[in-house]
Amino acid sequence: MTAVDAPSGRPASIETPRPGDPRLAGLSLNQWTTRNWGVAEAVEGCLRAGIPAIGLWRQQVAEYGLTQSAKLVRDASLRVSSLCRGGSLTALDSSLDDNRRAIDEAAALGTDCLVMVAGGLPEGSRDLAGARSRVEDAVQELEPYARGAEVRLALEPLHPMYCADRAVLSTLRQTLDLASHWPVESVGVVVDTFHVWWDPEVLAQIARAGARIASFQVCDLLNPLPADLLLGRGMMGDGVIDFRPLREAVDATGYTGDIEVEIFNADVWAADGHEVISTLARRYITEVL
Amino acid sequence: MTAVDAPSGRPASIETPRPGDPRLAGLSLNQWTTRNWGVAEAVEGCLRAGIPAIGLWRQQVAEYGLTQSAKLVRDASLRVSSLCRGGSLTALDSSLDDNRRAIDEAAALGTDCLVMVAGGLPEGSRDLAGARSRVEDAVQELEPYARGAEVRLALEPLHPMYCADRAVLSTLRQTLDLASHWPVESVGVVVDTFHVWWDPEVLAQIARAGARIASFQVCDLLNPLPADLLLGRGMMGDGVIDFRPLREAVDATGYTGDIEVEIFNADVWAADGHEVISTLARRYITEVL
Repeated sequence: MTAVDAPSGRPASIETPRPGDPRLAGLSLNQWTTRNWGVAEAVEGCLRAGIPAIGLWRQQVAEYGLTQSAKLVRDASLRVSSLCRGGSLTALDSSLDDNRRAIDEAAALGTDCLVMVAGGLPEGSRDLAGARSRVEDAVQELEPYARGAEVRLALEPLHPMYCADRAVLSTLRQTLDLASHWPVESVGVVVDTFHVWWDPEVLAQIARAGARIASFQVCDLLNPLPADLLLGRGMMGDGVIDFRPLREAVDATGYTGDIEVEIFNADVWAADGHEVISTLARRYITEVL
Repeated sequence: MTAVDAPSGRPASIETPRPGDPRLAGLSLNQWTTRNWGVAEAVEGCLRAGIPAIGLWRQQVAEYGLTQSAKLVRDASLRVSSLCRGGSLTALDSSLDDNRRAIDEAAALGTDCLVMVAGGLPEGSRDLAGARSRVEDAVQELEPYARGAEVRLALEPLHPMYCADRAVLSTLRQTLDLASHWPVESVGVVVDTFHVWWDPEVLAQIARAGARIASFQVCDLLNPLPADLLLGRGMMGDGVIDFRPLREAVDATGYTGDIEVEIFNADVWAADGHEVISTLARRYITEVL
Protein backbone atom coordinates (compact mmCIF):
# COMPACT_ATOMS: atom_id res chain seq x y z
CA MET A 1 0.00 0.00 0.00
CA THR A 2 1.06 3.62 -0.24
CA ALA A 3 1.22 3.85 3.49
CA VAL A 4 4.62 2.21 3.86
CA ASP A 5 7.00 4.18 5.94
CA ALA A 6 9.95 6.45 5.27
CA PRO A 7 9.16 8.05 1.92
CA SER A 8 12.38 8.89 0.14
CA GLY A 9 14.10 12.00 1.35
CA ARG A 10 11.84 12.29 4.34
CA PRO A 11 12.61 11.82 8.03
CA ALA A 12 13.10 8.22 9.04
CA SER A 13 10.17 6.40 10.53
CA ILE A 14 9.55 6.29 14.24
CA GLU A 15 8.14 3.67 16.56
CA THR A 16 4.38 3.52 16.61
CA PRO A 17 3.31 5.66 19.58
CA ARG A 18 1.57 3.84 22.41
CA PRO A 19 -1.85 4.70 23.81
CA GLY A 20 -1.45 7.58 26.21
CA ASP A 21 1.40 9.12 24.22
CA PRO A 22 0.85 12.87 24.65
CA ARG A 23 1.65 13.49 20.99
CA LEU A 24 -1.62 11.81 20.07
CA ALA A 25 -3.71 14.13 22.27
CA GLY A 26 -5.14 16.16 19.37
CA LEU A 27 -5.44 13.42 16.74
CA SER A 28 -8.71 12.21 15.25
CA LEU A 29 -9.42 9.32 12.90
CA ASN A 30 -11.88 10.29 10.22
CA GLN A 31 -13.60 6.98 9.76
CA TRP A 32 -13.60 7.20 5.96
CA THR A 33 -9.85 6.51 6.26
CA THR A 34 -10.84 3.04 7.45
CA ARG A 35 -13.81 2.97 5.17
CA ASN A 36 -14.43 -0.75 5.30
CA TRP A 37 -14.88 -0.63 9.03
CA GLY A 38 -18.18 0.08 10.68
CA VAL A 39 -18.50 2.39 13.67
CA ALA A 40 -17.75 -0.39 16.17
CA GLU A 41 -14.50 -1.43 14.46
CA ALA A 42 -13.38 2.18 14.05
CA VAL A 43 -14.02 2.93 17.71
CA GLU A 44 -12.14 -0.21 18.69
CA GLY A 45 -9.29 0.81 16.36
CA CYS A 46 -9.04 4.22 17.97
CA LEU A 47 -9.01 2.72 21.46
CA ARG A 48 -6.29 0.19 20.58
CA ALA A 49 -4.10 2.88 19.05
CA GLY A 50 -4.79 5.53 21.68
CA ILE A 51 -6.44 7.96 19.30
CA PRO A 52 -8.77 10.09 21.41
CA ALA A 53 -11.19 11.37 18.75
CA ILE A 54 -13.12 10.18 15.75
CA GLY A 55 -14.83 11.81 12.76
CA LEU A 56 -17.96 9.85 11.98
CA TRP A 57 -19.82 9.37 8.71
CA ARG A 58 -23.58 9.28 8.48
CA GLN A 59 -23.75 6.10 6.43
CA GLN A 60 -21.82 4.09 8.99
CA VAL A 61 -23.69 5.69 11.87
CA ALA A 62 -26.99 4.77 10.21
CA GLU A 63 -25.83 1.18 9.78
CA TYR A 64 -24.84 0.81 13.40
CA GLY A 65 -27.73 2.91 14.65
CA LEU A 66 -27.64 6.51 15.81
CA THR A 67 -28.42 5.89 19.47
CA GLN A 68 -26.05 2.93 19.63
CA SER A 69 -23.26 4.90 17.95
CA ALA A 70 -23.72 7.80 20.35
CA LYS A 71 -23.59 5.44 23.32
CA LEU A 72 -20.56 3.60 21.96
CA VAL A 73 -18.39 6.69 21.50
CA ARG A 74 -19.56 8.10 24.83
CA ASP A 75 -18.76 4.90 26.69
CA ALA A 76 -15.38 4.81 24.95
CA SER A 77 -14.70 8.43 26.01
CA LEU A 78 -13.93 9.31 22.40
CA ARG A 79 -14.51 12.85 21.24
CA VAL A 80 -16.52 13.09 18.03
CA SER A 81 -14.59 15.71 16.11
CA SER A 82 -17.08 15.95 13.23
CA LEU A 83 -19.92 14.33 11.40
CA CYS A 84 -19.66 13.97 7.62
CA ARG A 85 -21.70 15.23 5.95
CA GLY A 86 -24.47 17.59 5.07
CA GLY A 87 -24.64 19.68 1.95
CA SER A 88 -25.74 19.15 -1.65
CA LEU A 89 -27.15 22.64 -1.55
CA THR A 90 -26.85 23.49 -5.24
CA ALA A 91 -29.61 21.30 -6.69
CA LEU A 92 -32.47 23.24 -8.21
CA ASP A 93 -34.93 21.35 -6.03
CA SER A 94 -32.63 20.74 -3.09
CA SER A 95 -34.57 19.62 -0.06
CA LEU A 96 -33.17 20.81 3.22
CA ASP A 97 -34.84 18.13 5.30
CA ASP A 98 -31.89 15.81 5.02
CA ASN A 99 -29.60 18.55 6.27
CA ARG A 100 -31.86 19.14 9.26
CA ARG A 101 -31.64 15.42 9.99
CA ALA A 102 -27.86 15.62 9.73
CA ILE A 103 -27.84 18.49 12.24
CA ASP A 104 -29.93 16.40 14.64
CA GLU A 105 -27.58 13.46 14.19
CA ALA A 106 -24.52 15.61 14.92
CA ALA A 107 -26.16 16.85 18.12
CA ALA A 108 -27.11 13.30 19.13
CA LEU A 109 -23.54 12.13 18.58
CA GLY A 110 -22.16 14.89 20.76
CA THR A 111 -20.33 16.86 18.08
CA ASP A 112 -20.88 20.50 17.24
CA CYS A 113 -19.29 20.14 13.78
CA LEU A 114 -21.30 19.10 10.74
CA VAL A 115 -19.13 19.08 7.62
CA MET A 116 -21.00 20.58 4.68
CA VAL A 117 -20.02 19.77 1.08
CA ALA A 118 -21.79 22.32 -1.07
CA GLY A 119 -22.56 20.27 -4.16
CA GLY A 120 -21.56 20.85 -7.77
CA LEU A 121 -23.36 22.15 -10.82
CA PRO A 122 -26.77 20.57 -11.36
CA GLU A 123 -26.81 18.10 -14.27
CA GLY A 124 -26.52 19.98 -17.55
CA SER A 125 -26.18 23.39 -15.92
CA ARG A 126 -23.43 25.89 -16.60
CA ASP A 127 -24.75 28.46 -14.15
CA LEU A 128 -21.96 28.50 -11.59
CA ALA A 129 -22.98 31.85 -10.12
CA GLY A 130 -26.53 30.56 -9.69
CA ALA A 131 -25.31 27.41 -7.95
CA ARG A 132 -23.19 29.47 -5.59
CA SER A 133 -26.13 31.71 -4.86
CA ARG A 134 -28.27 28.70 -3.95
CA VAL A 135 -25.64 27.60 -1.43
CA GLU A 136 -25.99 30.96 0.28
CA ASP A 137 -29.78 30.69 0.30
CA ALA A 138 -29.63 27.18 1.73
CA VAL A 139 -27.24 28.13 4.52
CA GLN A 140 -29.51 31.05 5.33
CA GLU A 141 -32.37 28.56 5.68
CA LEU A 142 -30.41 26.06 7.76
CA GLU A 143 -28.51 28.38 10.06
CA PRO A 144 -31.28 29.01 12.62
CA TYR A 145 -31.91 25.29 12.91
CA ALA A 146 -28.21 24.59 13.40
CA ARG A 147 -27.92 27.37 15.96
CA GLY A 148 -30.87 25.95 17.86
CA ALA A 149 -29.18 22.55 17.95
CA GLU A 150 -25.82 24.08 18.91
CA VAL A 151 -24.25 22.54 15.82
CA ARG A 152 -21.99 24.48 13.49
CA LEU A 153 -22.40 24.21 9.76
CA ALA A 154 -18.78 23.66 8.77
CA LEU A 155 -18.57 24.81 5.15
CA GLU A 156 -15.79 23.03 3.31
CA PRO A 157 -14.07 24.53 0.29
CA LEU A 158 -13.10 21.68 -2.00
CA HIS A 159 -10.22 21.65 -4.46
CA PRO A 160 -11.25 23.47 -7.66
CA MET A 161 -10.95 20.21 -9.60
CA TYR A 162 -14.22 19.24 -7.91
CA CYS A 163 -16.02 22.49 -8.73
CA ALA A 164 -18.23 21.02 -11.45
CA ASP A 165 -19.21 17.79 -9.73
CA ARG A 166 -18.89 18.13 -5.96
CA ALA A 167 -18.53 21.59 -4.48
CA VAL A 168 -18.89 25.06 -5.88
CA LEU A 169 -17.11 26.38 -2.79
CA SER A 170 -13.56 26.37 -4.12
CA THR A 171 -11.37 28.55 -1.93
CA LEU A 172 -11.05 29.46 1.70
CA ARG A 173 -11.44 33.14 0.82
CA GLN A 174 -14.76 32.51 -0.91
CA THR A 175 -15.97 30.29 1.92
CA LEU A 176 -15.02 32.86 4.56
CA ASP A 177 -16.74 35.61 2.55
CA LEU A 178 -19.87 33.47 2.63
CA ALA A 179 -19.56 32.40 6.27
CA SER A 180 -19.16 36.02 7.37
CA HIS A 181 -22.90 36.54 6.95
CA TRP A 182 -23.62 34.48 10.07
CA PRO A 183 -22.30 34.18 13.61
CA VAL A 184 -19.09 32.28 14.11
CA GLU A 185 -20.90 29.98 16.55
CA SER A 186 -23.24 28.59 13.91
CA VAL A 187 -21.31 28.76 10.63
CA GLY A 188 -17.68 27.70 10.44
CA VAL A 189 -15.28 26.46 7.79
CA VAL A 190 -13.23 23.31 7.26
CA VAL A 191 -9.56 23.61 6.42
CA ASP A 192 -8.51 20.43 4.62
CA THR A 193 -4.90 20.43 3.48
CA PHE A 194 -5.73 18.40 0.37
CA HIS A 195 -8.16 21.02 -0.83
CA VAL A 196 -6.26 24.22 0.01
CA TRP A 197 -2.54 23.42 -0.18
CA TRP A 198 -2.13 24.97 -3.66
CA ASP A 199 -3.78 28.28 -2.76
CA PRO A 200 -1.27 31.16 -2.89
CA GLU A 201 -3.16 32.89 -0.10
CA VAL A 202 -3.90 29.92 2.10
CA LEU A 203 -1.82 31.08 5.06
CA ALA A 204 -3.37 34.55 5.03
CA GLN A 205 -6.86 33.11 4.72
CA ILE A 206 -6.27 30.66 7.58
CA ALA A 207 -5.21 33.63 9.72
CA ARG A 208 -8.32 35.48 8.62
CA ALA A 209 -10.48 32.45 9.40
CA GLY A 210 -9.53 32.57 13.08
CA ALA A 211 -12.37 31.21 15.19
CA ARG A 212 -14.31 30.21 12.07
CA ILE A 213 -12.21 27.08 11.76
CA ALA A 214 -14.57 24.31 12.80
CA SER A 215 -12.43 21.44 11.57
CA PHE A 216 -8.85 20.91 10.46
CA GLN A 217 -8.33 17.87 8.27
CA VAL A 218 -5.06 16.55 6.95
CA CYS A 219 -4.14 14.23 4.15
CA ASP A 220 -1.64 14.39 1.34
CA LEU A 221 -2.14 15.03 -2.37
CA LEU A 222 -0.64 12.39 -4.61
CA ASN A 223 1.31 13.30 -7.72
CA PRO A 224 0.40 12.14 -10.24
CA LEU A 225 -3.26 12.04 -9.34
CA PRO A 226 -4.98 8.70 -9.99
CA ALA A 227 -7.66 8.24 -12.66
CA ASP A 228 -10.37 8.50 -10.02
CA LEU A 229 -9.70 12.02 -8.73
CA LEU A 230 -11.63 11.35 -5.56
CA LEU A 231 -8.96 8.85 -4.56
CA GLY A 232 -6.01 11.21 -5.01
CA ARG A 233 -5.66 11.57 -1.27
CA GLY A 234 -2.66 9.96 0.33
CA MET A 235 -1.12 9.22 3.71
CA MET A 236 0.78 12.23 4.99
CA GLY A 237 4.28 12.05 3.57
CA ASP A 238 3.30 10.18 0.40
CA GLY A 239 2.52 13.31 -1.61
CA VAL A 240 3.45 16.92 -2.19
CA ILE A 241 2.04 18.75 0.81
CA ASP A 242 4.25 20.43 3.38
CA PHE A 243 1.99 20.14 6.42
CA ARG A 244 3.81 22.03 9.13
CA PRO A 245 3.32 25.58 7.83
CA LEU A 246 -0.40 24.86 7.46
CA ARG A 247 -0.70 23.26 10.90
CA GLU A 248 1.23 26.12 12.47
CA ALA A 249 -1.04 28.66 10.78
CA VAL A 250 -4.09 26.84 12.14
CA ASP A 251 -2.50 26.66 15.60
CA ALA A 252 -1.83 30.39 15.47
CA THR A 253 -5.55 31.10 15.15
CA GLY A 254 -6.09 29.54 18.58
CA TYR A 255 -7.74 26.45 17.15
CA THR A 256 -8.05 23.87 19.89
CA GLY A 257 -10.02 21.23 18.01
CA ASP A 258 -8.70 17.92 16.84
CA ILE A 259 -6.69 17.28 13.69
CA GLU A 260 -8.61 14.77 11.65
CA VAL A 261 -6.90 12.43 9.22
CA GLU A 262 -9.21 11.79 6.29
CA ILE A 263 -7.81 9.71 3.43
CA PHE A 264 -9.72 8.48 0.39
CA ASN A 265 -7.33 6.01 -1.18
CA ALA A 266 -7.94 2.59 -2.67
CA ASP A 267 -4.67 1.16 -1.33
CA VAL A 268 -5.30 2.48 2.16
CA TRP A 269 -8.81 1.07 2.08
CA ALA A 270 -7.50 -2.33 0.99
CA ALA A 271 -5.02 -2.49 3.87
CA ASP A 272 -5.63 -3.76 7.39
CA GLY A 273 -7.31 -1.01 9.40
CA HIS A 274 -5.07 -1.37 12.44
CA GLU A 275 -1.98 -1.10 10.23
CA VAL A 276 -3.42 2.01 8.61
CA ILE A 277 -4.02 3.60 12.01
CA SER A 278 -0.48 2.77 13.14
CA THR A 279 0.99 4.36 10.03
CA LEU A 280 -1.31 7.33 10.38
CA ALA A 281 -0.25 7.90 14.00
CA ARG A 282 3.45 7.77 13.09
CA ARG A 283 3.07 9.99 10.06
CA TYR A 284 0.99 12.46 12.05
CA ILE A 285 3.93 12.85 14.41
CA THR A 286 6.68 12.98 11.79
CA GLU A 287 4.87 15.05 9.15
CA VAL A 288 2.27 17.20 10.88
CA LEU A 289 3.18 17.90 14.53
CA MET B 1 -15.87 12.45 -31.25
CA THR B 2 -16.92 14.94 -28.61
CA ALA B 3 -17.08 17.66 -31.21
CA VAL B 4 -20.47 16.65 -32.61
CA ASP B 5 -22.89 19.49 -32.72
CA ALA B 6 -25.88 20.62 -30.70
CA PRO B 7 -25.07 19.49 -27.17
CA SER B 8 -28.30 18.78 -25.32
CA GLY B 9 -30.10 21.81 -24.01
CA ARG B 10 -27.86 24.17 -25.93
CA PRO B 11 -28.65 26.38 -28.93
CA ALA B 12 -29.10 24.48 -32.18
CA SER B 13 -26.14 24.24 -34.51
CA ILE B 14 -25.57 26.78 -37.25
CA GLU B 15 -24.14 26.51 -40.74
CA THR B 16 -20.37 26.49 -40.85
CA PRO B 17 -19.35 30.10 -41.50
CA ARG B 18 -17.58 30.78 -44.80
CA PRO B 19 -14.18 32.43 -45.21
CA GLY B 20 -14.66 36.16 -44.93
CA ASP B 21 -17.51 35.83 -42.43
CA PRO B 22 -17.00 38.85 -40.14
CA ARG B 23 -17.80 36.74 -37.08
CA LEU B 24 -14.49 34.94 -37.56
CA ALA B 25 -12.47 38.15 -37.52
CA GLY B 26 -11.03 37.62 -34.02
CA LEU B 27 -10.67 33.83 -34.01
CA SER B 28 -7.40 31.98 -33.77
CA LEU B 29 -6.62 28.27 -34.08
CA ASN B 30 -4.18 27.15 -31.46
CA GLN B 31 -2.40 24.47 -33.42
CA TRP B 32 -2.38 21.99 -30.53
CA THR B 33 -6.12 21.65 -31.25
CA THR B 34 -5.10 19.98 -34.50
CA ARG B 35 -2.11 18.39 -32.90
CA ASN B 36 -1.47 15.81 -35.57
CA TRP B 37 -1.02 18.48 -38.19
CA GLY B 38 2.26 20.19 -38.84
CA VAL B 39 2.54 23.93 -39.40
CA ALA B 40 1.80 23.65 -43.13
CA GLU B 41 -1.42 21.67 -42.63
CA ALA B 42 -2.59 23.97 -39.84
CA VAL B 43 -1.97 27.07 -41.96
CA GLU B 44 -3.82 25.45 -44.86
CA GLY B 45 -6.66 24.51 -42.48
CA CYS B 46 -6.97 28.11 -41.26
CA LEU B 47 -7.00 29.44 -44.84
CA ARG B 48 -9.67 26.98 -45.97
CA ALA B 49 -11.90 27.83 -43.01
CA GLY B 50 -11.26 31.57 -43.07
CA ILE B 51 -9.62 31.69 -39.66
CA PRO B 52 -7.32 34.71 -39.67
CA ALA B 53 -4.91 33.82 -36.87
CA ILE B 54 -2.96 30.90 -35.50
CA GLY B 55 -1.27 30.03 -32.23
CA LEU B 56 1.91 28.11 -33.00
CA TRP B 57 3.79 25.53 -30.98
CA ARG B 58 7.53 25.37 -30.86
CA GLN B 59 7.77 21.64 -31.58
CA GLN B 60 5.85 21.95 -34.83
CA VAL B 61 7.70 25.11 -35.78
CA ALA B 62 11.01 23.36 -35.21
CA GLU B 63 9.90 20.46 -37.40
CA TYR B 64 8.88 22.69 -40.27
CA GLY B 65 11.74 25.09 -39.71
CA LEU B 66 11.60 28.49 -38.06
CA THR B 67 12.37 30.60 -41.12
CA GLN B 68 10.04 28.55 -43.29
CA SER B 69 7.25 28.76 -40.71
CA ALA B 70 7.64 32.53 -40.44
CA LYS B 71 7.53 32.88 -44.23
CA LEU B 72 4.54 30.57 -44.51
CA VAL B 73 2.33 32.46 -42.07
CA ARG B 74 3.46 35.81 -43.47
CA ASP B 75 2.69 34.76 -47.04
CA ALA B 76 -0.68 33.46 -45.87
CA SER B 77 -1.40 36.78 -44.12
CA LEU B 78 -2.16 34.91 -40.91
CA ARG B 79 -1.63 36.67 -37.62
CA VAL B 80 0.40 34.63 -35.12
CA SER B 81 -1.56 35.16 -31.94
CA SER B 82 0.94 33.38 -29.70
CA LEU B 83 3.81 30.97 -29.47
CA CYS B 84 3.57 28.08 -27.00
CA ARG B 85 5.60 27.88 -24.92
CA GLY B 86 8.35 28.98 -22.63
CA GLY B 87 8.51 28.32 -18.93
CA SER B 88 9.64 25.46 -16.70
CA LEU B 89 11.00 28.06 -14.35
CA THR B 90 10.73 26.12 -11.10
CA ALA B 91 13.51 23.58 -11.56
CA LEU B 92 16.35 23.93 -9.10
CA ASP B 93 18.84 24.11 -11.97
CA SER B 94 16.53 25.69 -14.51
CA SER B 95 18.46 27.01 -17.47
CA LEU B 96 17.03 30.14 -19.03
CA ASP B 97 18.71 29.66 -22.38
CA ASP B 98 15.79 27.76 -23.81
CA ASN B 99 13.45 30.56 -22.81
CA ARG B 100 15.68 33.10 -24.54
CA ARG B 101 15.52 30.94 -27.65
CA ALA B 102 11.73 30.85 -27.34
CA ILE B 103 11.67 34.65 -27.16
CA ASP B 104 13.77 34.84 -30.31
CA GLU B 105 11.46 32.38 -32.05
CA ALA B 106 8.38 34.40 -31.11
CA ALA B 107 9.97 37.53 -32.54
CA ALA B 108 10.96 35.68 -35.72
CA LEU B 109 7.42 34.40 -36.15
CA GLY B 110 5.99 37.89 -35.81
CA THR B 111 4.15 37.44 -32.53
CA ASP B 112 4.65 39.47 -29.40
CA CYS B 113 3.10 36.80 -27.18
CA LEU B 114 5.13 33.96 -25.68
CA VAL B 115 2.98 31.77 -23.47
CA MET B 116 4.84 30.82 -20.30
CA VAL B 117 3.90 27.74 -18.27
CA ALA B 118 5.65 28.11 -14.95
CA GLY B 119 6.45 24.49 -14.13
CA GLY B 120 5.47 22.41 -11.11
CA LEU B 121 7.28 21.23 -8.02
CA PRO B 122 10.70 19.76 -8.71
CA GLU B 123 10.79 15.96 -8.34
CA GLY B 124 10.48 15.05 -4.66
CA SER B 125 10.09 18.63 -3.47
CA ARG B 126 7.30 19.94 -1.28
CA ASP B 127 8.59 23.50 -1.24
CA LEU B 128 5.80 25.27 -3.07
CA ALA B 129 6.75 28.71 -1.82
CA GLY B 130 10.31 28.13 -3.00
CA ALA B 131 9.14 27.05 -6.44
CA ARG B 132 6.99 30.15 -6.73
CA SER B 133 9.87 32.29 -5.68
CA ARG B 134 12.06 30.79 -8.41
CA VAL B 135 9.43 31.70 -11.00
CA GLU B 136 9.72 35.31 -9.91
CA ASP B 137 13.50 35.18 -10.09
CA ALA B 138 13.40 33.65 -13.57
CA VAL B 139 10.99 36.24 -14.93
CA GLN B 140 13.22 38.93 -13.46
CA GLU B 141 16.11 37.41 -15.44
CA LEU B 142 14.18 37.03 -18.67
CA GLU B 143 12.22 40.28 -18.75
CA PRO B 144 14.97 42.54 -20.13
CA TYR B 145 15.65 40.07 -22.91
CA ALA B 146 11.95 39.86 -23.76
CA ARG B 147 11.61 43.64 -23.68
CA GLY B 148 14.57 43.96 -26.03
CA ALA B 149 12.90 41.56 -28.45
CA GLU B 150 9.53 43.27 -28.10
CA VAL B 151 8.01 40.01 -26.94
CA ARG B 152 5.74 39.76 -23.93
CA LEU B 153 6.18 36.99 -21.44
CA ALA B 154 2.56 35.84 -21.12
CA LEU B 155 2.36 34.17 -17.71
CA GLU B 156 -0.38 31.58 -17.63
CA PRO B 157 -2.10 30.54 -14.43
CA LEU B 158 -3.02 26.88 -14.76
CA HIS B 159 -5.89 25.12 -13.02
CA PRO B 160 -4.87 24.24 -9.44
CA MET B 161 -5.12 20.53 -10.30
CA TYR B 162 -1.84 21.05 -12.19
CA CYS B 163 -0.08 22.84 -9.33
CA ALA B 164 2.16 19.93 -8.39
CA ASP B 165 3.18 18.80 -11.84
CA ARG B 166 2.83 21.67 -14.33
CA ALA B 167 2.41 25.18 -13.01
CA VAL B 168 2.74 26.70 -9.58
CA LEU B 169 0.93 29.76 -10.90
CA SER B 170 -2.61 28.80 -9.98
CA THR B 171 -4.84 31.86 -10.04
CA LEU B 172 -5.19 35.03 -12.03
CA ARG B 173 -4.84 37.08 -8.83
CA GLN B 174 -1.52 35.46 -8.02
CA THR B 175 -0.28 35.83 -11.59
CA LEU B 176 -1.27 39.50 -11.71
CA ASP B 177 0.41 40.12 -8.37
CA LEU B 178 3.57 38.68 -9.88
CA ALA B 179 3.27 40.43 -13.25
CA SER B 180 2.79 43.79 -11.55
CA HIS B 181 6.53 43.91 -10.86
CA TRP B 182 7.26 44.59 -14.52
CA PRO B 183 5.93 46.83 -17.29
CA VAL B 184 2.73 45.77 -18.98
CA GLU B 185 4.55 45.82 -22.32
CA SER B 186 6.94 43.03 -21.38
CA VAL B 187 5.02 40.85 -18.91
CA GLY B 188 1.41 39.90 -19.52
CA VAL B 189 -0.96 37.15 -18.50
CA VAL B 190 -2.95 34.49 -20.30
CA VAL B 191 -6.64 34.07 -19.51
CA ASP B 192 -7.63 30.52 -20.42
CA THR B 193 -11.23 29.69 -19.61
CA PHE B 194 -10.35 26.08 -18.78
CA HIS B 195 -7.95 27.17 -16.06
CA VAL B 196 -9.89 30.02 -14.47
CA TRP B 197 -13.60 29.27 -14.90
CA TRP B 198 -14.02 27.97 -11.34
CA ASP B 199 -12.44 30.99 -9.67
CA PRO B 200 -14.97 32.94 -7.61
CA GLU B 201 -13.12 36.16 -8.40
CA VAL B 202 -12.36 35.54 -12.05
CA LEU B 203 -14.46 38.41 -13.39
CA ALA B 204 -12.96 40.90 -10.96
CA GLN B 205 -9.45 39.70 -11.71
CA ILE B 206 -10.02 39.92 -15.47
CA ALA B 207 -11.13 43.52 -14.96
CA ARG B 208 -8.04 44.13 -12.86
CA ALA B 209 -5.84 42.53 -15.52
CA GLY B 210 -6.81 45.14 -18.10
CA ALA B 211 -3.98 45.66 -20.54
CA ARG B 212 -1.99 42.82 -18.96
CA ILE B 213 -4.06 40.31 -20.94
CA ALA B 214 -1.68 39.08 -23.59
CA SER B 215 -3.76 36.11 -24.69
CA PHE B 216 -7.33 34.92 -24.28
CA GLN B 217 -7.80 31.21 -24.82
CA VAL B 218 -11.05 29.29 -24.81
CA CYS B 219 -11.91 25.66 -24.39
CA ASP B 220 -14.41 23.81 -22.26
CA LEU B 221 -13.90 21.70 -19.16
CA LEU B 222 -15.35 18.22 -19.37
CA ASN B 223 -17.30 16.72 -16.50
CA PRO B 224 -16.38 14.13 -15.50
CA LEU B 225 -12.71 14.72 -16.19
CA PRO B 226 -10.94 11.89 -18.04
CA ALA B 227 -8.25 9.75 -16.43
CA ASP B 228 -5.54 11.81 -18.12
CA LEU B 229 -6.27 15.21 -16.61
CA LEU B 230 -4.36 16.96 -19.35
CA LEU B 231 -7.00 15.81 -21.81
CA GLY B 232 -9.97 17.17 -19.86
CA ARG B 233 -10.33 20.02 -22.32
CA GLY B 234 -13.34 19.93 -24.61
CA MET B 235 -14.88 21.71 -27.56
CA MET B 236 -16.83 24.75 -26.41
CA GLY B 237 -20.32 23.58 -25.54
CA ASP B 238 -19.28 20.06 -24.54
CA GLY B 239 -18.54 20.92 -20.93
CA VAL B 240 -19.51 23.09 -18.01
CA ILE B 241 -18.15 26.52 -18.89
CA ASP B 242 -20.38 29.49 -19.59
CA PHE B 243 -18.14 31.42 -21.97
CA ARG B 244 -20.00 34.64 -22.61
CA PRO B 245 -19.54 36.30 -19.22
CA LEU B 246 -15.82 35.57 -19.43
CA ARG B 247 -15.53 36.80 -23.02
CA GLU B 248 -17.50 39.94 -22.18
CA ALA B 249 -15.25 40.62 -19.19
CA VAL B 250 -12.18 40.30 -21.41
CA ASP B 251 -13.79 42.55 -24.04
CA ALA B 252 -14.51 45.13 -21.37
CA THR B 253 -10.79 45.46 -20.62
CA GLY B 254 -10.27 46.74 -24.17
CA TYR B 255 -8.56 43.53 -25.25
CA THR B 256 -8.24 43.57 -29.04
CA GLY B 257 -6.21 40.40 -29.51
CA ASP B 258 -7.49 37.16 -30.96
CA ILE B 259 -9.46 34.52 -29.14
CA GLU B 260 -7.51 31.31 -29.40
CA VAL B 261 -9.17 27.93 -29.28
CA GLU B 262 -6.84 25.46 -27.59
CA ILE B 263 -8.20 21.97 -26.99
CA PHE B 264 -6.27 19.00 -25.66
CA ASN B 265 -8.62 16.10 -26.24
CA ALA B 266 -7.94 12.62 -27.52
CA ASP B 267 -11.19 12.47 -29.52
CA VAL B 268 -10.61 15.85 -31.12
CA TRP B 269 -7.07 14.81 -32.02
CA ALA B 270 -8.35 11.60 -33.59
CA ALA B 271 -10.84 13.44 -35.79
CA ASP B 272 -10.23 14.98 -39.20
CA GLY B 273 -8.58 18.36 -38.74
CA HIS B 274 -10.83 20.19 -41.18
CA GLU B 275 -13.91 18.82 -39.41
CA VAL B 276 -12.51 19.95 -36.07
CA ILE B 277 -11.95 23.45 -37.43
CA SER B 278 -15.49 23.59 -38.83
CA THR B 279 -16.96 22.56 -35.50
CA LEU B 280 -14.70 24.97 -33.69
CA ALA B 281 -15.78 27.88 -35.89
CA ARG B 282 -19.46 27.11 -35.35
CA ARG B 283 -19.10 26.63 -31.63
CA TYR B 284 -17.07 29.80 -31.34
CA ILE B 285 -20.03 31.69 -32.79
CA THR B 286 -22.76 29.93 -30.81
CA GLU B 287 -20.96 29.61 -27.49
CA VAL B 288 -18.40 32.39 -27.23
CA LEU B 289 -19.34 35.41 -29.34
